[in-house]
Amino acid sequence: MRLVNHPDRLLPVDPATRAVARELYASVAELPIVSPHGHVDPRILVDDRPFDDAAELFIRYDHYVTRLLHAAGVPFGELGIPGGGAVAAPREVWRTFCAHWELFAGTASGYWLQTTLGEVFGVTEHPDAADADRLFDLIGSALATDAFRPRALFDRFRIEVLATTDDPLDDLAPHAALAADAGFRGRVVPTFRPDAYLDPTAPGWAERVARLAELTGERETYAGYLAALAARRAHFVEHGAVSADHGVARPLTVQLDDADAAALFERGRAGALEADEARVFSGHMLLQMARMSVDDGLVMTIHPGILRGHDRPTLERFGPDMGHDIPVPVSYVEPLRPLLERYGNEPGFHLVLFTVDESTFSRELAPLAGYYPSVYIGAPWWFLDAPDAVLRFRAAVTETAGFSRGSGFIDDTRAFLSIPARHDMSRRLDAAHLARLVGEGRMPRELAERIIVDLVRDQPRRVFKL
Amino acid sequence: MRLVNHPDRLLPVDPATRAVARELYASVAELPIVSPHGHVDPRILVDDRPFDDAAELFIRYDHYVTRLLHAAGVPFGELGIPGGGAVAAPREVWRTFCAHWELFAGTASGYWLQTTLGEVFGVTEHPDAADADRLFDLIGSALATDAFRPRALFDRFRIEVLATTDDPLDDLAPHAALAADAGFRGRVVPTFRPDAYLDPTAPGWAERVARLAELTGERETYAGYLAALAARRAHFVEHGAVSADHGVARPLTVQLDDADAAALFERGRAGALEADEARVFSGHMLLQMARMSVDDGLVMTIHPGILRGHDRPTLERFGPDMGHDIPVPVSYVEPLRPLLERYGNEPGFHLVLFTVDESTFSRELAPLAGYYPSVYIGAPWWFLDAPDAVLRFRAAVTETAGFSRGSGFIDDTRAFLSIPARHDMSRRLDAAHLARLVGEGRMPRELAERIIVDLVRDQPRRVFKL
Amino acid sequence: MRLVNHPDRLLPVDPATRAVARELYASVAELPIVSPHGHVDPRILVDDRPFDDAAELFIRYDHYVTRLLHAAGVPFGELGIPGGGAVAAPREVWRTFCAHWELFAGTASGYWLQTTLGEVFGVTEHPDAADADRLFDLIGSALATDAFRPRALFDRFRIEVLATTDDPLDDLAPHAALAADAGFRGRVVPTFRPDAYLDPTAPGWAERVARLAELTGERETYAGYLAALAARRAHFVEHGAVSADHGVARPLTVQLDDADAAALFERGRAGALEADEARVFSGHMLLQMARMSVDDGLVMTIHPGILRGHDRPTLERFGPDMGHDIPVPVSYVEPLRPLLERYGNEPGFHLVLFTVDESTFSRELAPLAGYYPSVYIGAPWWFLDAPDAVLRFRAAVTETAGFSRGSGFIDDTRAFLSIPARHDMSRRLDAAHLARLVGEGRMPRELAERIIVDLVRDQPRRVFKL
Repeated sequence: MRLVNHPDRLLPVDPATRAVARELYASVAELPIVSPHGHVDPRILVDDRPFDDAAELFIRYDHYVTRLLHAAGVPFGELGIPGGGAVAAPREVWRTFCAHWELFAGTASGYWLQTTLGEVFGVTEHPDAADADRLFDLIGSALATDAFRPRALFDRFRIEVLATTDDPLDDLAPHAALAADAGFRGRVVPTFRPDAYLDPTAPGWAERVARLAELTGERETYAGYLAALAARRAHFVEHGAVSADHGVARPLTVQLDDADAAALFERGRAGALEADEARVFSGHMLLQMARMSVDDGLVMTIHPGILRGHDRPTLERFGPDMGHDIPVPVSYVEPLRPLLERYGNEPGFHLVLFTVDESTFSRELAPLAGYYPSVYIGAPWWFLDAPDAVLRFRAAVTETAGFSRGSGFIDDTRAFLSIPARHDMSRRLDAAHLARLVGEGRMPRELAERIIVDLVRDQPRRVFKL
Repeated sequence: MRLVNHPDRLLPVDPATRAVARELYASVAELPIVSPHGHVDPRILVDDRPFDDAAELFIRYDHYVTRLLHAAGVPFGELGIPGGGAVAAPREVWRTFCAHWELFAGTASGYWLQTTLGEVFGVTEHPDAADADRLFDLIGSALATDAFRPRALFDRFRIEVLATTDDPLDDLAPHAALAADAGFRGRVVPTFRPDAYLDPTAPGWAERVARLAELTGERETYAGYLAALAARRAHFVEHGAVSADHGVARPLTVQLDDADAAALFERGRAGALEADEARVFSGHMLLQMARMSVDDGLVMTIHPGILRGHDRPTLERFGPDMGHDIPVPVSYVEPLRPLLERYGNEPGFHLVLFTVDESTFSRELAPLAGYYPSVYIGAPWWFLDAPDAVLRFRAAVTETAGFSRGSGFIDDTRAFLSIPARHDMSRRLDAAHLARLVGEGRMPRELAERIIVDLVRDQPRRVFKL
Repeated sequence: MRLVNHPDRLLPVDPATRAVARELYASVAELPIVSPHGHVDPRILVDDRPFDDAAELFIRYDHYVTRLLHAAGVPFGELGIPGGGAVAAPREVWRTFCAHWELFAGTASGYWLQTTLGEVFGVTEHPDAADADRLFDLIGSALATDAFRPRALFDRFRIEVLATTDDPLDDLAPHAALAADAGFRGRVVPTFRPDAYLDPTAPGWAERVARLAELTGERETYAGYLAALAARRAHFVEHGAVSADHGVARPLTVQLDDADAAALFERGRAGALEADEARVFSGHMLLQMARMSVDDGLVMTIHPGILRGHDRPTLERFGPDMGHDIPVPVSYVEPLRPLLERYGNEPGFHLVLFTVDESTFSRELAPLAGYYPSVYIGAPWWFLDAPDAVLRFRAAVTETAGFSRGSGFIDDTRAFLSIPARHDMSRRLDAAHLARLVGEGRMPRELAERIIVDLVRDQPRRVFKL
């Protein structure tokens, strides 16, 4: 089956609207990529070693891909993932993937894979079982060339800024190395991700807090804990960080007075908190992170509403990020009120709210971002980073909040090679949405031309202070 | 940038479907406006004084507009709103607005403003900073002419019925004056809005209840309180009211026996209610309002699910209705069961349920209205009164409840000049939706032609007993 | 008004997309019908007696139809439903229905009725009051012919498999009779529906549990209760059942140890359970049903989130299924975790999750089915079994879960004559969705051609083990 990446893909089917969309898309198709949030490991750019093989690159670490294969009954071991039983070799993993390729028809992952196979590797046939070995070798041969080493691809993809996601105690040496490397012109910035240091119910929290104190030379008190967190944020800022990212179960924010917070902190260290108390303390710390963002300028991003590790037996065997983090209903309005009343109107404070619960787009996120100068609506991501979902997102938020209150596109990916496919998809969908508004007489074409450039080129820089 | 209100705006882009939609729209485009719920001040029609200026007319009182400017970092003072600091003069406010005009691209407010500027004032260029003064003067000159005085516009807009929203203790003198004025042919009717008299947690509730007793000559007992409310409803009915409107946090309804209700009433007057008790008492009173609607025939409208005054510091400085009333998740089915079991099948009782939580359209409102003869699905309003949201609404409710169970269009506006733009938008979207059904072979064109006339001309009269 | 069932109905309006959709639809239009879940009474096929009349066939038992007439103010008695007051004769019922025909414009019921009247009876005019008698007689004459007897229609409709829904104590004699009847070639299978035996708050639960013990010869203990349920499941399996169906208020699952479960069982028999305890016991039993499905292979279907009998006074007078079962917000992720942790990865276990809360499609059902091999996303049904809702469903789930994780189409109907219209609708909408993906360059046409055949022919057989 021929693999064709049609030049008009994702554009509206109506011919007149498609013509407008095509021109809008063309005006931004070649603009550099700004990626303010993602999960690429910076060491691949420091080392610049060739990627191993197609299985390592496309399957093994992409839980969007592995989860659907798992749902089809493929054991994780056959996908090359250790955790019990045999672990297949890369070529075997690739064969299994190719044999199941049609599972991905109509999915976002399938779209990115098809785009990447075609645009990056020049593949012209859809994967299938019979062709698996040839494809594995074709990709393998390409990866062995200098043109496919990480830095070469970084340039080819026109990536201007790439943010990583990092532990507060990370020394950020890879970022420092890249910044100091005259031969590397890209900007790779860390992101402060303190979840496991803020939630007393996270396994190992007390030990982590102790290491935090040790590394920063602060005392193991509540005041020392706050000072240590601020110190690590400063370390991140020194290394180019522009944002701090918060993945919380619920977006609760609470303002405790110092004495109460200190008491909960001490009981947390002793492992003596009730579940409710732990939630309150986490909510207090989320509000403290907002306060620190006001102080140090790091953009605050929050993405609540995921039950992580739903399948506990699998979590225990295979570890996290295996595709069974599942969204739950979420509401932002009441839980974020304490934070927004304090800092929502604070000049320079930027708060990006992501969701995986679509019902919040028109109900909560657009109204909040349409009022609070600090609030930006996070681009649809994770399960919602897909063509139809993105168009639903644009239709749901724009009528209330316009275009200025969005975060700009976020790829949020650990799959380095999928970055251009993802940004290209977003640009096509922005063109599709704007072309519809033009076609329905709701926007002058001239304005749509300006807006799409702003969305792609300026908005992520503005919102993430790049 | 040329401002063009395209004659086919909001109609589907597919040419054949657009042709059908165009004819459907044409059949209702010029029909008179019936506005059964809104917030226009009736005194502007009594006095018939010229409007002041463009800033007063389009910005100062329109929290759809001011909130998005606030989100862009414009202080309320620069929008002419007092509450601390300097208050800009109207011309300055207008300049600020014009400089930020592109914020409104793609929003419902932007659409109405563009329609109104073009259709009512003949403006042919989009506002911008350079053109602001010329536009301010052009509008100012128009407003100074007789053709732009409120009554002349009321006639020009072909408004047949306009409902206002009023405090239960209002004497309704403006309504009486308009009814008695042989020179004014429109019908302006009050709406009974008793929220602040039913919720013991509303600031000033006890004083308000005392004034209610005083004005009606009833005793300050629970029985007197009910009698006083009934008396004020009768006063509204005498002045032409057709509905009573209820904006509640949650749509709770409760049936207490008289002794329990009286006890809560007394404790409420003493300021001694717990939060839960206050909620129960409010829920009991909402059910009492339904009972009174059964008795006196006032259509009952309920719009729950808004957290009002989310940004309390701003609420304290600038007062209510500043754009930070934010929707929260809501469900109607269980909380309204006591009310619907009692009165849901009562002949003549009309209950219109509005929402700002889209997830309730197909899940709750269409199923409820598709069964209970009393229940009508409120037109999408507030954040959802926008082209894409309206089409989502139609698609979500029609397949379960058909067209007969809707409220008819509600503009809910305090912006008098936007009324024709809003009703015109609704008519275009009804045409768009029906034309799609015709194009998809789901409805004969002949039937679509009848339905659109019913939706625009008959449905609001039927549902609101006009 | 001419009744035309356009050959391209429900296909996209864009001509190029419609052309693709038309060919996709044509490839599956004539395939046999597999109906793995529904409510047709098997005795109509055993007896093969002519249907009575149009009112009996289309109105009296179809609560999709009666509820909208009830909402329009028609008393149930005028629809031929006993429960107090006069009960209209069939011809009168039909006249009332025809006079209100336009209420159904744009609804799913209206679509099915129009399709059935045209395609099955050759009706060429829309019903209306003037034509009611002629139509009643025309349908009546047809029904009196052999070609319109149930078995003849079963053949004409190309039904290959038809599942019924049955009480656990049912002897399944009609199924046995049909299986033994050499003159009947269809496959009619029962479905085990144990709700009323699992929920101690269901009226008559203790008596039902006693009868269960009596019929199976088990003791009236908790262990006997489990054994009796397993025995009845075995009885169903012997009679061809492939699934067990669970309609629960909330999808709670709980694992109790045997002693705790036995204690709750005994207190339930004594009528002494608190509401919370009853919920826990029901949740425990839902998990036991999963365990038994793992053992005996019956596909487990769950459809939570309906408040049944919302209008209690009407429930008391007219009984259940009168159109006032109303959806409420629902979430699956946390309540089903105990079940899925135990059995979610169990080979051969199939769990189909239905919803009437659309917000769960992208938020919960697609992510769960995109990970757990056992979980399939139930086709949109009940209020959501309608053209726009189905397209929203496809758009909401496919990007995460692809096409392989769906249940296949489920008609869930008690209206035998509507079966072909419903399956045809689903096939058209699958074609519409796939054609859009082809038109947007997201799927090769060749793959769409394979997928639609899989969806219609293979998926229901695979998921329901047919």
